[in-house]
Order: sequence, then C-alpha cells, then structure tokens
Amino acid sequence: MSKFWSSLAKQVDPYIPGEQLNDDTIIKLNTNENPYPPSNQVIQAIDEASKNLRLYPSPTVDELRSEIGEMYGLSQDHIFIGNGSDEVLAFSFMSFFEPGNRIKYPEITYSFYPVYAKLFNISTDVIPLNDDYTIPVEHFYNSEGGVIFPNPNAPTGIFLEIDQIKRILENNPNQVVIIDEAYIDFALESAVTLVEAFPNLLVIQTMSKSRSLAGLRIGFAIGNPELIIGLERIKNSFNSYTVDRLAIAGAIEAIRDKDYFLQTTTKIIESRSYLKEQLETRHFDILPSQANFLLVSHKEVNAEVLYQELKKQGILVRYFQKPGLENFLRISIGTPAQIEKLLKKIDHIIKPSP
Amino acid sequence: MSKFWSSLAKQVDPYIPGEQLNDDTIIKLNTNENPYPPSNQVIQAIDEASKNLRLYPSPTVDELRSEIGEMYGLSQDHIFIGNGSDEVLAFSFMSFFEPGNRIKYPEITYSFYPVYAKLFNISTDVIPLNDDYTIPVEHFYNSEGGVIFPNPNAPTGIFLEIDQIKRILENNPNQVVIIDEAYIDFALESAVTLVEAFPNLLVIQTMSKSRSLAGLRIGFAIGNPELIIGLERIKNSFNSYTVDRLAIAGAIEAIRDKDYFLQTTTKIIESRSYLKEQLETRHFDILPSQANFLLVSHKEVNAEVLYQELKKQGILVRYFQKPGLENFLRISIGTPAQIEKLLKKIDHIIKPSP
Ligand SMILES: Cc1ncc(COP(=O)(O)O)c(C=O)c1O
Ligand SMILES: Cc1ncc(COP(=O)(O)O)c(C=O)c1O
Repeated sequence: MSKFWSSLAKQVDPYIPGEQLNDDTIIKLNTNENPYPPSNQVIQAIDEASKNLRLYPSPTVDELRSEIGEMYGLSQDHIFIGNGSDEVLAFSFMSFFEPGNRIKYPEITYSFYPVYAKLFNISTDVIPLNDDYTIPVEHFYNSEGGVIFPNPNAPTGIFLEIDQIKRILENNPNQVVIIDEAYIDFALESAVTLVEAFPNLLVIQTMSKSRSLAGLRIGFAIGNPELIIGLERIKNSFNSYTVDRLAIAGAIEAIRDKDYFLQTTTKIIESRSYLKEQLETRHFDILPSQANFLLVSHKEVNAEVLYQELKKQGILVRYFQKPGLENFLRISIGTPAQIEKLLKKIDHIIKPSP
Repeated sequence: MSKFWSSLAKQVDPYIPGEQLNDDTIIKLNTNENPYPPSNQVIQAIDEASKNLRLYPSPTVDELRSEIGEMYGLSQDHIFIGNGSDEVLAFSFMSFFEPGNRIKYPEITYSFYPVYAKLFNISTDVIPLNDDYTIPVEHFYNSEGGVIFPNPNAPTGIFLEIDQIKRILENNPNQVVIIDEAYIDFALESAVTLVEAFPNLLVIQTMSKSRSLAGLRIGFAIGNPELIIGLERIKNSFNSYTVDRLAIAGAIEAIRDKDYFLQTTTKIIESRSYLKEQLETRHFDILPSQANFLLVSHKEVNAEVLYQELKKQGILVRYFQKPGLENFLRISIGTPAQIEKLLKKIDHIIKPSP
C-alpha cells in the first residue's frame, strides 16, 4: 500500500491471468488459445496496414463493425469493438451496471466478473450452480441490477440452450443481460439471433479463441443500438482509440476468411471429442464441454498433483485454487500431436511403473 | 438516453477526437501525427511478431518496460505500459486521484482531462493560464487531490522549465503530480530526471508523436515503483492484456532505433522554426512552441474561416470551438513539401486576388 494510491487502487482485487511463459518447448494448454495460427489473409492485411502506422486508427472502427454486423445480418450500429473482450466487459460493467443494484452471476464462472464488480463498486448476488454444474435458470430471473454469464460457461464448458436464455431475458425486462460468448464458435448456436427481439441483451464475443488472435486483442459486443451508444459514451470518455490499425486490419480479414475459420473450428471440435473419449478410458470425469477446453478431474489422482507433474514434463494446463474447483483441471484443446503427447504424459503419471 | 444506461453512462461528457478522414489526398495537420513513417526496424519486428498471434501477449510487457527503462537509466519497475497514453492517463486518474479531493489542471490544456474527471467523479480546481499563456506555477502548489498538465502544454506548445516543475513537486509532497509529456521529444528536456528524487512524480509519454506510431497505440508512464504498482493494480482489474503482440514488438524497435528517432525529430524541429518564420511574415501571432505543432492566430482573418477554407482546399488543421481558443488554429508540423502547400493555400486565402 502506498499513500499515493486512491482508495480505488487500494480496494481492488486484481485478476491473475494464466501463466504466459516465453518457452517454445512447452505445450501450452492453459489459456484456451487456438492451436492453429490465424488465416494467411490476416497476416497479409497486417503487413499492408503497417505502412500507415504514423496515422491514428479510425476512432469509430466502422469497417470492422460493418463486417461483423454483416456476418449476423445486422447493421454496424449493433456492433461495438474493444481491445479484447476483457475491455468490452469492463466498459459494459461501467455502462449498464449501477453501484448499489446487485447483479447476478454464477458462483463458478469467469473469474474476472468479481474483479470488475469490485473495481466499479457493483454489488453482487452470486448464484450457485446446480449439482451437475449447469446454470439454474430461474435463479437468474428478476435481478436487481443485471445479469452476466458466459455461454458456454467457463471453466465448465457447459452450454445453455438459447430457449433458456430467452427466459432469462424475458424475466429481466428492465435490466441488461450480458451473455459472454467467448467460446460460442465451438458450441451449438449464438444468442445473437435474440438481439433484435430483446433490447436488454448484450452478446460479447472475442477473436482470441476461434479466430486464433489472442495476441491481437479484439473483442466485440452485439446488441441494440441504444446499448452500443452507451458503450461508446464510456469508451470515448476513456480512450479515443482503443484498437490499433494492425488489429483492425487483421480482424477484418479474420471475419472474411470463412473457410479457414470453419476448418479450424471443426478440427478443434473433433479433437475435443477424441480427447474426451481418451480421457474417459483413463478414469477421468469430464463435464460436457461445448468450448475449446475440457474441465476434467481424475477419479484417483489429485488435480494439483497432476498439474504439477504435467508442468514438470513440459505441459501447462490450468489449475484453479478456488472453492468448488480444487479437484479440476482445465485443458485447452491442442493439435492432434499435442493431444497424443498429453495422453502419453498422463499415462506416465497415473500409471507409474511398478 | 436509454433506461438501460447506468448513471455513469448518462453523466459522462465524451471526448471528441480530431477528424480522422479516410482520404489520402488530404494533408492532415490536425492531430499532431508525425509526417514521417516509423523506422523500418519497427515494420520488420511487426512482421516477425505476426507469426505468434495465436498466443496471448505478455501481460507484464517486461521486455518493452526494460527497454524504456534503460533509455532513462531506470529499471523496468519504474515503467508502466498502456494502450496509448490516453489509457495510461485514464488508469492514472483511477489510481491516484480521489473522488472528493480537487485536482488542479490548467484552464487551457488537453481536453481529455475534464472528461476523465467527469468519468471518475473527480472534483477539479481549474487554473487560468497567465496572459501570455504560460502556466502560473504558484497556483499549482498545495493541491487537495493532485496535479496534472502537459509539458509542453497542449494546445499552446509552451514548455515549462524543469526547475519550475520541481517547485510544483516540492509544494505537493503528499499528492501525485502527473506531467503529460506527449510532446517532450520536441522540447528541451524531460522531467524524468526528477523521478528518483520525487516519489510523487508520474511522467507520461507516448509513441504516437515522436516515434511515428499513432496507429499502434503505445503510451507509457515513468515513476516511482510504488506508483507503477498502483497502476498495475488498476490495469489488472480492467484488462489482463491491454497491449497486443505487434504493438509490443514494434514499440521495442522504435526505442532501439535511436538514429532514426533523432533524424526525424530534428527534421520536425527545424520545420517548426521555418513554418513559424513564414507564418510570422504572413501576419500570424504564434505562441512559442516546443511541440510538433504551432498554435497560431491571424491578425485579420478569423480562425474558423481559415479552418473552413483550408479544409475546402484539402488541408485539415485543428480548430477548437472552446472559450479562450476561438481565434486559434493548431497546425501540426508536416513535411517540408506539406508546409509549402500549406503556405501557398494560406496566401491564397488571406490575400484574395483583387
Ligand atoms: C469467459 C471469458 N470471457 C472473456 C475472456 C477474455 O477474452 P479476451 O479478452 O481475450 O477477448 C475469456 C478469456 O479467457 C473468457 O474465458
Ligand atoms: C497532451 C496529450 N496527451 C495525451 C495524448 C494522447 O496520446 P496517445 O493516446 O495517442 O498516446 C495527446 C494526443 O493528442 C495529447 O495531446
């Protein structure tokens, strides 16, 4: 603590991201990055855009907004762009949640939500999951200050049907309901189709996972233009240009190259099934995931031990030292070759030679 | 106004950035961009870094921090990196200024400060400039909540001597004094040399101006490690990764290529003298600028008329519709060729053929 810090700086409880090691020999399955590189079109567009770096980027990011809008049959007025979906989430807390009015989110969920709540002084009503780790839909009705959860949920990977989201929207007519779809491209369907019917729905997506662009920092929100204007008011009070020229140029091409997107997401979904089957034969319990990761626990070997042993052997997975998650590991879906290596190491750890 | 907006979203008064036109034929002298492209080393580093975009960037940005630290003979613990200095400024308001305690800034200054004050609910004590547009140093003593101003000031371009800054620091021992050095590389000297003696000093700089990287969004703060930790606490409660891989890679090379930096800043400083002389012969009053722009007013022709006429003729300069600035134009320093075109157009406007 420093006497120069504001009471805000003193009070916050910062997020701790997954380890980012600078070691190419390690197999990194801990932060849900895509194992495949971005489309070549993205790289080319970045190269081209690097010629104009002396000039500020577009503060309104219109071209990218209309590209994303088109993908969902919406105008650019429905789209807001941010520096990663983390930034979009932060601006959303500022724009739609009111200090004093309690918002609802699940007890097991993306651990940045409580951090934002603390930063922006938002009270919370934390809802325990059902015993099977699904979301108890009725408990999200009639919130005082709004609702937020990921779909698929993180780190469970469990997908909530759109019909259920519709019920939550109908039962919060005067509150904003934020669906954080960071992993939606690996799942059945997006709630974006509800945007025109529900002015209280904000869907947030990211290019960090399904578009292989974690290193570029692009997230976006889709919602009623009224909500988008609210986000813009906050953003324009914070930073005129949050997304740089290279990120804009790359993101546009990531949306345009639909074939590559489809190929890579399909491969990851297939690998997810394969990894799940393989881990099941090795006595793991696995939640039904529609994301690019599996949340798993071994019937005998303790999760922390497994995490440490895998790390020693050059494979990084995510271990959460948090209530309710003590015996789980979150494993991002890698390439088939990475998966084989992972399985081999696991075999080595759980069946030590006699 | 929407019923879904928080009271914060309703209350803010967003910043309006200078026009960013997508028109290559226009000569853009309105947002203090550098007329020269960034160093080739920067472009090469970006190209190289685009290979790893599937992975998140470093959340701590250590390599860039130590590169910047080295430049000033400081360790990386003294450096904080942000997504443009606007983001660094926003985090600084959150980290060091307390709602209820009035901060001091000049009446004519960077117009984002009042926007931040409104966003973060910080009370203000706005200090009028002296008649010659210089900063009235004594009036910045004994602030209740802190001090912030640019040096050189914007949009006056006037530089305040380091000795004077020292007096302000000495007379605010328990408050943070932020010196926004967006334009310092075109001026006499930085206040960074005071950082080790004054734990209450935070210096903020940007790569948008002197490093030709407005399009890449890199700003940084230099201060006592205690202040840097405060900034990190807020940043890590907001967005784990605010600066993308390409921006980090490019920024590192922008610092490393010292020759190119020196060449381009020298050229701009020379062009500034030339433009000043030329405008003086054309009956302009010009404030003594140590930045990459001039704040000018013509003795006869109204600033708004001049702005409109120049715009019609393909030259964009900055006109502020603000009290105290009604009769000024801010003109960014362009290349020698751009300056010749500007002078020709001005001749055409102020001396219409009979
Ligand atoms: C549920 C969820 N939301 C948002 C994010 C943030 O993603 P980004 O800021 O990279 O867009 C993550 C990242 O892991 C996540 O798991
Ligand atoms: C005084 C001052 N500070 C900060 C900034 C913001 O610069 P950036 O966010 O591009 O680093 C500007 C931009 O014009 C400025 O004039």
